[in-house]
Amino acid sequence: MSVLIVGSTALDSIKTPNAENPRLLGGSASHAAVAASFFSPVKLIGVVGEDFPKKYLQLYKRHNIDVEGLQLLPGKTFHWSGEYELNMNNRRTLLTELGVFETFTPVLPPLHQATPFVLLANIAPALQHHVLDQVKRPKFVVADTMDLWLNIALEDLVKLLKRIDGFVLNDSEAQQLTKEDNVFAALKKIHKMGPKYVIIKKGSHGSILSGPGGIFICPAYPLKTVVDPTGAGDSFVGGMMGYLATARGSIDANIRRAMIYGSVTASFCCEGFGLTRTTKTKRGDIDQRVKELEKMTKF
Amino acid sequence: MSVLIVGSTALDSIKTPNAENPRLLGGSASHAAVAASFFSPVKLIGVVGEDFPKKYLQLYKRHNIDVEGLQLLPGKTFHWSGEYELNMNNRRTLLTELGVFETFTPVLPPLHQATPFVLLANIAPALQHHVLDQVKRPKFVVADTMDLWLNIALEDLVKLLKRIDGFVLNDSEAQQLTKEDNVFAALKKIHKMGPKYVIIKKGSHGSILSGPGGIFICPAYPLKTVVDPTGAGDSFVGGMMGYLATARGSIDANIRRAMIYGSVTASFCCEGFGLTRTTKTKRGDIDQRVKELEKMTKF
Repeated sequence: MSVLIVGSTALDSIKTPNAENPRLLGGSASHAAVAASFFSPVKLIGVVGEDFPKKYLQLYKRHNIDVEGLQLLPGKTFHWSGEYELNMNNRRTLLTELGVFETFTPVLPPLHQATPFVLLANIAPALQHHVLDQVKRPKFVVADTMDLWLNIALEDLVKLLKRIDGFVLNDSEAQQLTKEDNVFAALKKIHKMGPKYVIIKKGSHGSILSGPGGIFICPAYPLKTVVDPTGAGDSFVGGMMGYLATARGSIDANIRRAMIYGSVTASFCCEGFGLTRTTKTKRGDIDQRVKELEKMTKF
Repeated sequence: MSVLIVGSTALDSIKTPNAENPRLLGGSASHAAVAASFFSPVKLIGVVGEDFPKKYLQLYKRHNIDVEGLQLLPGKTFHWSGEYELNMNNRRTLLTELGVFETFTPVLPPLHQATPFVLLANIAPALQHHVLDQVKRPKFVVADTMDLWLNIALEDLVKLLKRIDGFVLNDSEAQQLTKEDNVFAALKKIHKMGPKYVIIKKGSHGSILSGPGGIFICPAYPLKTVVDPTGAGDSFVGGMMGYLATARGSIDANIRRAMIYGSVTASFCCEGFGLTRTTKTKRGDIDQRVKELEKMTKF
């Protein structure tokens, strides 16, 4: 089955202590779509401007990502620029130019409306709602978010939680949303707000799922070198949704393994700037790391 | 088989945002010994002063901890006082009164010298050396440490690393010792310094083992309530050594499961002040949480 992914499609200029990389392909939807594409056909919903490099369109197509829902509008592509500190944990935004993203309204082509798996990657909750208004009885809907929306669009986000099956957020966002330090207390409160599946991401410490099958402690694949963690969270949820869309059986039967595949896909993302390492990855490389992770967690 | 444990035996006065608890039984050896006692006979090496409450001696004995090597000296017992912040992650020392600990020289009774498993719990590296000078061909020696010894006794500690099989330290200490941010780079450097088994503790994020069997990612048992994490690291390594001493087969065959048992024993430690929760724990409670942890990590 295929996955519909809406989110940002951007050009990212990323500075780290060791390098500077201007105008890489980025955005939550780009990372999630490429990650999902290792497992399932992907339909991308987003917007780019006239400056969007052709090579990036070709990149989407090489990954069999359907770009019928990718709008090309007069103006500039969303441009984000950020800088990482030496330990790669702290990121600071240097510049945000919304460009065509400012007036973006996602429109689903008719054939996209019945996509069974829907990933509302990180984007304004109002736009996530707008996509849900257009889909027809999806099998499984997951939303991701970021602290910005907790700060400026909390009401929209809280309403969204009643319309989705799964919600993904990081530990500091979970704390901000629930005012709870303890992960169980936070999970309980978020379940009450709507979603049956809640996943709290903890960066290099992995993630934790709470759902009908109980708690799952999902490890991160430990990396020897972290080059650029931008998009790792998007890759995680993209890989997870891609795996789920292709797996036989119930969501419950597959979601843990799907998280492991998402976690491994995210590990490749961290090993290069933007999508440079992910796009060189083969499905076999992913399967190999999943096997390694099985060995590293067996007791 | 039995475990010899040397370390501090102290009275801890612990303040948290919610409570104050004066003169609880504490110290690295107390926590490690009680944790190990769920699995194996324990021989404790330490020192206390005349003010050491009889009830704590009885507590050791209730846990079948051999106190023949516990010296009772004129003067006061080591007293530590600390305060936790609201999130229970940051601790600050309010007071350290060394008392009889200042002149402590561990002396092993003759029958203790051939104990097969030796845990050098957190204590000055010079004293850890002194214990190793007295033991006869132990099967497996593990040392724990703390940042203080990295700061004031680094040379002794580095020498110790050549004399032990396993070394346990937390992530910030590993970074301080090796000047490496990345866990693999840190592990590699520590192996080169001597120990065949290196375990890096990451608090509520679990721990990671590097040894002949490769990398093991050991989860922490997730807790609904953390009352007081003092002694959790000591309980972890104590539980691990206790389990190892009782398990049949090679260290390699058992160390992962031993870490899981240590991790679960530490989880009980965090649920009460000092040793109050751990001492109410039964072996069956530990086995139950190990089963839960198996469920929570299966994929």
